[in-house]
Amino acid sequence: MTGRLFGLGVGPGDPELLTLKALRLLREAAVVAYPAARGRKGRALTIVEEHLRADQERVPMVYPVTTEALPAPLDYETVMSAFYDESAAVLAHHLDAGRDVAVLCEGDPLFYGSFMYLHDRLAERYPTTVVPGVCSVVACASALAVPLVYRNQTLSVISGVLPEDALRARLAAADAAAVMKLGTQFPKVRRVIEDLGLTDRALYAERATMADQRLMPLRAVEGDSVPYFAMILIPGDRWTGV
Amino acid sequence: MTGRLFGLGVGPGDPELLTLKALRLLREAAVVAYPAARGRKGRALTIVEEHLRADQERVPMVYPVTTEALPAPLDYETVMSAFYDESAAVLAHHLDAGRDVAVLCEGDPLFYGSFMYLHDRLAERYPTTVVPGVCSVVACASALAVPLVYRNQTLSVISGVLPEDALRARLAAADAAAVMKLGTQFPKVRRVIEDLGLTDRALYAERATMADQRLMPLRAVEGDSVPYFAMILIPGDRWTGV
Ligand SMILES: C[S@@+](CC[C@H](N)C(=O)[O-])C[C@H]1O[C@@H](n2cnc3c(N)ncnc32)[C@H](O)[C@@H]1O
Ligand SMILES: C[S@@+](CC[C@H](N)C(=O)[O-])C[C@H]1O[C@@H](n2cnc3c(N)ncnc32)[C@H](O)[C@@H]1O
Repeated sequence: MTGRLFGLGVGPGDPELLTLKALRLLREAAVVAYPAARGRKGRALTIVEEHLRADQERVPMVYPVTTEALPAPLDYETVMSAFYDESAAVLAHHLDAGRDVAVLCEGDPLFYGSFMYLHDRLAERYPTTVVPGVCSVVACASALAVPLVYRNQTLSVISGVLPEDALRARLAAADAAAVMKLGTQFPKVRRVIEDLGLTDRALYAERATMADQRLMPLRAVEGDSVPYFAMILIPGDRWTGV
Repeated sequence: MTGRLFGLGVGPGDPELLTLKALRLLREAAVVAYPAARGRKGRALTIVEEHLRADQERVPMVYPVTTEALPAPLDYETVMSAFYDESAAVLAHHLDAGRDVAVLCEGDPLFYGSFMYLHDRLAERYPTTVVPGVCSVVACASALAVPLVYRNQTLSVISGVLPEDALRARLAAADAAAVMKLGTQFPKVRRVIEDLGLTDRALYAERATMADQRLMPLRAVEGDSVPYFAMILIPGDRWTGV
């Protein structure tokens, strides 16, 4: 009997945004795996740490790189593929030994989550349950207290990493938008929003739902440097009926 | 002292997908309001009912209509505006009397949720907290066990109510898509997906995460009639690295 694989969405930051189901399965798992940057504890781990027991084995999956721009001959695709292959092998070892493995995922596991790459490598071989979580986009809307998308409007969720032209085309076509993955992309994203005349509608949310969250109109963001864990929302036009 | 207004996302259907925070605030509220179709109990109420106490006042907000196509001289915008005005007045009465009011919202409150129209009418007058929830789009992806959107792909969330041409343009431009609000729109949506050559990538989820959920490739859906609580997902192309 192999163990079961759980992909657990732990929400965007506030530990209280964990679901009852994620909490239950977390407690059932012998092994708790989570992504972490080198030398950091891991945000997903921090969110659920109060619920962990001493007898649960913790398996950090430490990202080999933190940027897509790598010096040759390194290449992001190759490095990350190898990282996910190795991480999957470590989890497979526990699963083969019959231990249930919970992989913690910030926000939702299947919405731009690193769990997807483990899922693609393991879900066909082991019984897998994915527990959806509160994703960052709706968490930012709640933190900003702004209705995100009305009635028959289209919501476009866009990566700030896109080249400027692609970003412009995506944003120009959107009724409502969320631009994720800001970090070093921020000056470019802000410029495109300004060019399109959307700045007055744009809101900024950093570390939403966490104790140190920062929430403000885009116009009020000073400087060119924002963290990766931030996004810009352009809510849909308010539906006022008649 | 007025009462506090809580907009509580209760998730897509499985009662275990409630967050710890929504559960805590639900228990603190003297009044629990929820949308319901005429003669029905209300799906949001059903999700949390096991947690309610007898001393909590239940306020159903009964939708006056169930379709946007109304016989003249009725008109959907006018009817719904009046409905939200009246519902807001009922809640304001409780809030003015100092009672905390929890409004239950399926999925997430600010993501196409009817709570948005109450928020627009009440949030400036009363202290308001919105608790984000697991929205239907990520819940459907988890139920179908399919990664929804990779890396720098754009996710388009689209209403099936859009006219055929608009729907076609939106879907043609999407890297990954969710088409919501199916119901009577289903034959049109399926035709557009077929025309665009997307049928092989399309998945269907009905009442995802509920006991009677139905999950299948779009191609396997028989007949032209599906419920409103269904959506089609077109996941982004799998990122395989090298
Ligand atoms: C790789 S994606 C992960 C998304 C996650 N799986 C989810 O469901 O939200 C990382 C991006 O999510 C956004 N993000 C995640 N948590 C956030 C938060 N608490 N506040 C603002 N943005 C957040 C940022 O835009 C960040 O660049
Ligand atoms: C008015 S929207 C409400 C969305 C909700 N606020 C949310 O966060 O998911 C209603 C649409 O959501 C989708 N939906 C909601 N719950 C669903 C479920 N459990 N399974 C499939 N689709 C669902 C359907 O497409 C439905 O037409």
